[in-house]
Amino acid sequence: MTINLKAPQCKPVSESKGAQMHDLVQELYPICRSITGDGVRQTLRILQQHIPLEIKEVPTGTPAFDWVVPKEWNIRDAYIKNERGEKVVDFAEHNLHVVNYSTPVETYLPLAELKKHLHTLPDQPGLIPYKTSYYKPDWGFCLTHEQYLALEDGMYEVCIDASLEDGSLTYGEYVIPGESTDEVLLSCHVCHPSLCNDNLSGIVVATYLAKALQQQHNKFTYRFLFVPGTIGSITWLSQNEEKIPAIKHGLVLTLLGDEAGFTYKRSREGNYKIDTVVEHLLAESGKKYQVIDFFPYGYDERQYCSPAFNMPVGCLMRSQHGQFPEYHTSADDLAFVKPAQLEESLIFLEEVLDVLENDATYLNTNPKCEPQLGRRGLYDSLVGKSDKKSREMAMFWILNLSDGRYSLLAIAKRSGIPFKIIKVVAGVLISHGLLIPAVYNAAE
Amino acid sequence: MTINLKAPQCKPVSESKGAQMHDLVQELYPICRSITGDGVRQTLRILQQHIPLEIKEVPTGTPAFDWVVPKEWNIRDAYIKNERGEKVVDFAEHNLHVVNYSTPVETYLPLAELKKHLHTLPDQPGLIPYKTSYYKPDWGFCLTHEQYLALEDGMYEVCIDASLEDGSLTYGEYVIPGESTDEVLLSCHVCHPSLCNDNLSGIVVATYLAKALQQQHNKFTYRFLFVPGTIGSITWLSQNEEKIPAIKHGLVLTLLGDEAGFTYKRSREGNYKIDTVVEHLLAESGKKYQVIDFFPYGYDERQYCSPAFNMPVGCLMRSQHGQFPEYHTSADDLAFVKPAQLEESLIFLEEVLDVLENDATYLNTNPKCEPQLGRRGLYDSLVGKSDKKSREMAMFWILNLSDGRYSLLAIAKRSGIPFKIIKVVAGVLISHGLLIPAVYNAAE
Amino acid sequence: MTINLKAPQCKPVSESKGAQMHDLVQELYPICRSITGDGVRQTLRILQQHIPLEIKEVPTGTPAFDWVVPKEWNIRDAYIKNERGEKVVDFAEHNLHVVNYSTPVETYLPLAELKKHLHTLPDQPGLIPYKTSYYKPDWGFCLTHEQYLALEDGMYEVCIDASLEDGSLTYGEYVIPGESTDEVLLSCHVCHPSLCNDNLSGIVVATYLAKALQQQHNKFTYRFLFVPGTIGSITWLSQNEEKIPAIKHGLVLTLLGDEAGFTYKRSREGNYKIDTVVEHLLAESGKKYQVIDFFPYGYDERQYCSPAFNMPVGCLMRSQHGQFPEYHTSADDLAFVKPAQLEESLIFLEEVLDVLENDATYLNTNPKCEPQLGRRGLYDSLVGKSDKKSREMAMFWILNLSDGRYSLLAIAKRSGIPFKIIKVVAGVLISHGLLIPAVYNAAE
Repeated sequence: MTINLKAPQCKPVSESKGAQMHDLVQELYPICRSITGDGVRQTLRILQQHIPLEIKEVPTGTPAFDWVVPKEWNIRDAYIKNERGEKVVDFAEHNLHVVNYSTPVETYLPLAELKKHLHTLPDQPGLIPYKTSYYKPDWGFCLTHEQYLALEDGMYEVCIDASLEDGSLTYGEYVIPGESTDEVLLSCHVCHPSLCNDNLSGIVVATYLAKALQQQHNKFTYRFLFVPGTIGSITWLSQNEEKIPAIKHGLVLTLLGDEAGFTYKRSREGNYKIDTVVEHLLAESGKKYQVIDFFPYGYDERQYCSPAFNMPVGCLMRSQHGQFPEYHTSADDLAFVKPAQLEESLIFLEEVLDVLENDATYLNTNPKCEPQLGRRGLYDSLVGKSDKKSREMAMFWILNLSDGRYSLLAIAKRSGIPFKIIKVVAGVLISHGLLIPAVYNAAE
Repeated sequence: MTINLKAPQCKPVSESKGAQMHDLVQELYPICRSITGDGVRQTLRILQQHIPLEIKEVPTGTPAFDWVVPKEWNIRDAYIKNERGEKVVDFAEHNLHVVNYSTPVETYLPLAELKKHLHTLPDQPGLIPYKTSYYKPDWGFCLTHEQYLALEDGMYEVCIDASLEDGSLTYGEYVIPGESTDEVLLSCHVCHPSLCNDNLSGIVVATYLAKALQQQHNKFTYRFLFVPGTIGSITWLSQNEEKIPAIKHGLVLTLLGDEAGFTYKRSREGNYKIDTVVEHLLAESGKKYQVIDFFPYGYDERQYCSPAFNMPVGCLMRSQHGQFPEYHTSADDLAFVKPAQLEESLIFLEEVLDVLENDATYLNTNPKCEPQLGRRGLYDSLVGKSDKKSREMAMFWILNLSDGRYSLLAIAKRSGIPFKIIKVVAGVLISHGLLIPAVYNAAE
Repeated sequence: MTINLKAPQCKPVSESKGAQMHDLVQELYPICRSITGDGVRQTLRILQQHIPLEIKEVPTGTPAFDWVVPKEWNIRDAYIKNERGEKVVDFAEHNLHVVNYSTPVETYLPLAELKKHLHTLPDQPGLIPYKTSYYKPDWGFCLTHEQYLALEDGMYEVCIDASLEDGSLTYGEYVIPGESTDEVLLSCHVCHPSLCNDNLSGIVVATYLAKALQQQHNKFTYRFLFVPGTIGSITWLSQNEEKIPAIKHGLVLTLLGDEAGFTYKRSREGNYKIDTVVEHLLAESGKKYQVIDFFPYGYDERQYCSPAFNMPVGCLMRSQHGQFPEYHTSADDLAFVKPAQLEESLIFLEEVLDVLENDATYLNTNPKCEPQLGRRGLYDSLVGKSDKKSREMAMFWILNLSDGRYSLLAIAKRSGIPFKIIKVVAGVLISHGLLIPAVYNAAE
C-alpha cells in the first residue's frame, strides 16, 4: 500500500521547524487515506508521536444530521493486467491509481468496457487525477493520459482487493485547556491520500501549532480537529452541538505548503474578530496575499458556516483549491510543498493566535489631556530603540484611544502601527499605571 | 391637426412586439397632445384598443394641492402668412410649430414684432423646438432657424385658431388586480405632442407591459397611469392620497425607444427595493447602463418623490432627458425610436416585475450542516445542463443563506448568480422539501 | 531681546487685510516668546490693540490634571565668545540661538565640552534650528551648521542671562457673546519665538477673525484662546472643565500663512459637524487641499481631543507641521508667510463660521408635490441672474429635501450646490412662506 519513498532519516534537533514539518509530510505521504479506514488511523497514530491527540471512532450507521456514517473502506491491492499478465496500472505504485472508495472488483473486461472505469487528465497527460466515489457505489482507476493512450485492444484483468463493510469513521481531537473555557477551533481534513499540499500541509502545520501551544500558558482553550472532509466535520458537529457556543474563533487549515501568498477566505458573516485579525496581519505583512469572501464551497468551513451554526470560522490557505494546476493530481507531491512555506504558515498562525490571546481593551487612567510622559521617563525609555518613533506614536495612540471603545487591535488598525508594537507599548503603559484593563471579554 | 404620415398598415400577427410597439408609436405620432384637450382623449382611446383603461376627466378649477386644474386647450389650425398670402409657418405641417397652450390670436404684425413670438434653435438650424406656456398666457410659433432666417421684412398675418376654456384634464388609469392589494405603480406622461421618444416610447411600452400582465396571475396589483406631466400626477395624487400607502414599488417610464443603454434614476431614498432590483438586473445584464441618483427635476418622479410622499418610485429611461441632441425637437421622430430598443425595454421591465413577483425569503429546513444532495438525486438532476455549475453553486448558496435574513434577490446579489437561476433552483429545493417559505412580506 | 528688523510703518487704512495681518506678524516677529514669561505678555498686549482680550495669569505650581504650571522663564541676553572675545553666537541676532527654557549659565568651556550643548541642522547648513527643553533642566545654543564648522579649537565663554523662577503662565482669552450660549472655540498657540508660520500666522488670523466677529450679530458665542502649546491648553481645560460641554464646534489655527493649499486635520471622531463643514467647503472650493485623519500628535487638538473630552475640534493648517523644510528653523521667517495666503485663510474661516451660523433645518410648508413656483413669481425672480440655473435647482432641492431630515448644509452636500447659494435661495423661499424653521438646534 506504500510507494517507494526514501525512509525518514534521523534529523538533528536543530533542524528548522519547516524542515521538520516537511519530514512529517514525507512520513505521511505514502499512506492511503480516505474518509474512513486504516489510512486515517495510521496517520493519526503518527501524529500522536507529536501531540497527545485522542483517536475517536464513530460506528457505521450513526446518524449525523442529514447524513449517516458510511461503511468503512479499506484497500489492500489493486491493478489492471493486460493479456500478457503485465500490470499496466498498479495501486502499489501510487495511491491515486484507484478511485477512492471503489467497491471490490475481480473480473475480465475488453478495453472498451474497461475504459468506462478509467479517469485521466487529457490536458495534463503525465499526471494521475484524484477521484472519489464515497456515496455512490462504483469502482474505477485513475491513470496518466499517457498510460491510457498506450493501452492496447484486448481483454484486461481487473482487481480491486478492497472491503466496504460496517466499521467506523475515525478522527483525531486534541484539546489544550486554557484560562478560559472560550475556545479557538483549528480544523483540518485528513481524508486525502498521497496529496501533499491538500492536505498533509494543513495536518502538519496544525500539529506543530498544537505542539507550540501546549508548551505555553493560554488564555483560550484550543481545540484541534483532524477529521475526514465533510462527513467528519458533520459527524463532529452532530455529536458536539453543545460545544459550539464556546467556540469564539476558528480556522480551517489547508493548502499551506505551496509557494503562493496567503489566501484568507472570510467567515460567512465576514466581520467576525477572526476575520479582522487575519486581515490586519496580512495587510501589515507587506507580502502578497488575497482575501476572499465566504462562499459555500471548499472545505469544512461549509459545515461550520452552515446557517444554523454560522460559526466564526475562516479558512487559511496559500493557493486556493481548484486554482492551481497541481490540485487533485499526482503533481501535488513532496516537491510541491516547501519547508520555508510550511514554516511561514506556522509563524503566521502563531501571530494570529498571539493577537487573539493578547488583544484586550484598556482604559487610560489619565483621560483628561495627555499624561506627562517625560516626568515618568517614558521618552527616555525609548532612547536608542530602532523603532523609537513607532513606539512613541504607539504611546500617544494607545493613550488617546483607550476610552473603552478601542481594543489594542482596533488601535493597531486605526494607527497603522503593527499589533506587536502596540502590545509591547501597552505593557509599558500598564506598568506605569497609565492603563488598566477594561471589562474582560474573550469573545470580543 | 395631423401631419402627412403614412397610414398604419395591417401587420401579420407574428410581427415582433418591438415592431408592434413601433407601429403604435406611428399611429399616435400625428396627434397634437397637450396637458389637456382632445389630443390626450384621442390618444387614450387608441390605447383602449389594447388595454381596458379608464379615461378620467377632472374639471377645470379643481384644486390639486398647491395647484388648480387649468382651462382646457384645443387647437384647430395655426399659421403665419407673408404679404403674398403664403403660409411661411403652418401648424398643419408639424404640431411643434405652435407653442403648446398658445392663446388664440388673429392679427397682423410687422416682422420685428412677430419675432418676439418666434422660437428657434440657432445651433440646430434644421430642427423645430418644442415649447410650452401652460401657466403664463402667451402665444408663439416654433420654427427651424433656417425658416426664421428666410423671413423677409414686411407685414405678417398670424392666426392661432385655438380655444382655452373651462373643460377638464383627462388621464387614463388601468388597474390589474393581483393576489395582494399591495401595488406596483407604472406611470407615464401623455402630454407631449409629436415627440416619439419623449414620450410615445413610454406610453407604448407601458401599454404592452399591461397587456402582458393582464394575461397572467400576479402577486401584486398593478396600477398604470397615463397622465399629463406634472399637473396630471399632482391631480392624481391629490385625489387618491388614500391609495398611496399601498404602492410598494413604482417606476416612471419615459424615453425608452432610443439606442442608448438604460439609465436608471433612483428613488429619493435611493435604497428602496425597486432600486435594488433594477440596479441588480442592470449590473448582471452585461450591457452598458448608468445609475444616477435622484434629483428633483425630470418627470413625475418629482411629484411621487416629494417629501410628504417619498414614494418608492424610480425612473427608467434610455437616454436621459436634456442629454441628447434630439430632445424636445422635431428630430425626436419616428426614425429616432427603434423597434429593437422598444422591445428590449419591455423585456427588461418584465424581468424587473418578475423579480418583484418572485422574490421571497425562504428557510433551509436542514440548517445544521449541508443536507446530503447526492442522496436526493440533486446532483444527477443537473447532468447535461449547460449551466450545471451555476445551478450547483446556486443550490449551495440558497441553502447556506436561507436563514431568514436573505431573500432570493439578496442571495442572487451576494452569490453573483443571476436571479432567474436562483429562482429556478429554489423551486427545485422547495420541491424536495429542503426550503420552505419564511413569513410573506410583499413590500419587503 | 529683539533682533534688528525694520520698525512697523504707518499704513493706509485701505490696505488689504492680508497686508495688515502681515504687518502684525512683522510687529510680533522680534519678540522672544516661550510657554511662560514676558514674551507672551508683550505679544498679548499688542493683540489688545486689535481685540479686547483678557490676559490671564496662572501661578507656577498650579496643578493642571497630570501636569503642574512650571516656573516662569525670562531671558535678557546670551552669547558664546571665543578666546578673542568675539561673540560667535549672539542671542541678540536671533531668538532661536538659545534653546528655549535654557537654565542660566556663565562659564568657560573647551570646544569639545561646548559642542555637547550645540544644535545644528547638518542637512540645512544655513539655518538655525528651533529647540526647547521645557521640562528637563538643560541649556544649549542653536546655530547654523556653517557657524558650527567655523568654530576654532580653544576655550569659550558661555553666557545665558536667563531666569527660571516662580511666576506664572500667561494666556489670552476673548469671548464674544452670541445669541446662544453654545460656543465655537478658536485656539492658537502663542509660545513659539521668532517663527512666522508657526505660529504668528495662526495668531494674526485668529485676531482678525475675532475683529470681524465682534462687529456682527452672531448666533454662537465665540471663544478665542491664545495659549502656550500643550501646557496652555491643559491649564485652560483643567480650570474650565465646566465650560467644555458648551463648546459645540472648534478649530485649532496654525500654519496659515505659507503658500501650500489647506490641510484639514479631522477631529478625533472624524464626523463632527465641524468636520463636515470644513470638508464640504474645501471640496467645493475647487482648490488643492488635503483632509487627514486625526492622530494624537501635532498641536493643542491633542488635548481637546483627549479621550475624556473628545471635543469637536479639528485643526486647520496650510502646510502640515514637520512636513515642510522651513518647519522649526530660522527659515520660517517674514518672507515665508504671504499676505495673500493669510487673507485666504481668514476668508476661508469666515466661510466656515458662516455655515455654522446659518445652517439650519427647515420644513417645506407644501410637502405634497411641488408648490407652483411660477404663480409666485419665483421663476421670474431668477431672470438675468448669472447663476439662474443653480438657483432654480436650489429651489427644487431645498423644497424636496426640507422634510426635517436635511439641514441646508446637508442639502448643499447632496445637491452639489454651494452652501452660499442654498442659503440665499432658502431665504427667498422663507420670504414666500414656502419654508419654515424646524426645531432649532445649534449643535446639530
